[in-house]
Amino acid sequence: MRKLYFEDFAVGQVFSTGRHRIDKDQIIGFARQYDPQYYHLDEEAAKESPFKGLAASGWHTAAITMRLMVDGEFKPAGGILGVGFDQLSWSKPVRPGDELYVKSEVLELRPSKSRPDRGTLRVRNTTFNQNDEAVQSFTANLLVPRRSPAS
Amino acid sequence: MRKLYFEDFAVGQVFSTGRHRIDKDQIIGFARQYDPQYYHLDEEAAKESPFKGLAASGWHTAAITMRLMVDGEFKPAGGILGVGFDQLSWSKPVRPGDELYVKSEVLELRPSKSRPDRGTLRVRNTTFNQNDEAVQSFTANLLVPRRSPAS
Repeated sequence: MRKLYFEDFAVGQVFSTGRHRIDKDQIIGFARQYDPQYYHLDEEAAKESPFKGLAASGWHTAAITMRLMVDGEFKPAGGILGVGFDQLSWSKPVRPGDELYVKSEVLELRPSKSRPDRGTLRVRNTTFNQNDEAVQSFTANLLVPRRSPAS
Repeated sequence: MRKLYFEDFAVGQVFSTGRHRIDKDQIIGFARQYDPQYYHLDEEAAKESPFKGLAASGWHTAAITMRLMVDGEFKPAGGILGVGFDQLSWSKPVRPGDELYVKSEVLELRPSKSRPDRGTLRVRNTTFNQNDEAVQSFTANLLVPRRSPAS
């Protein structure tokens, strides 16, 4: 797939990804290593939690989202290089059996003031489940190289 | 360790964690699964990247941060239950051999308007390396139960 430079992006463009099916073993495996809290580890105990059932760690959803994006249509030259993000929210629990995919919408293009060879892209990334319900969204600030230096 | 309820928190409290040493195998292992971009996978190629050397995926740093917090001093009753985050930034690359730890500072306490049994805590979490340089920070909005319902 063609690598995209700063000049190739425009506000309103939307990029999609493939899908990833998450299962109970993946949820528990990630949680054991990075987020060992009972509602991510124990199906029975999770029923009494605010999630009312086993739910993936939000950081697991974030990691899967990144993988889907790396494998998806959104291919900035130089990679998906985030310097930070804001407004991350987890709007719905991710359950065993959910199939996740991501849509990335370009919100803003900012040429760099100090570096004529690159710019910053603001991109809103929303992760959906198989019912097209948003489970996570965040806005990323990504560094993207220019094909030609800004004059 | 004692579980903390909404009433136990106060603006300005700081909670610490233990340390986690990250190595090359961990960086590459996480990247293979969740963020397979060359600057997280290939030590040689990464030298030519904006990171100028192998660097952990930011999502890996975020996941390690969560694990340090779950094992650390900050123990809200009901768990560390984030509904969202803002202003996440990765201020410095995380390198093989870095030893990470986290400090969490309570910024704000918001009693829930609709739910007398809980409140929201705004907490700034900063991850440092062994040289006490910040490598990541973000502000979390966490749901915390009250010991006694608000009157």
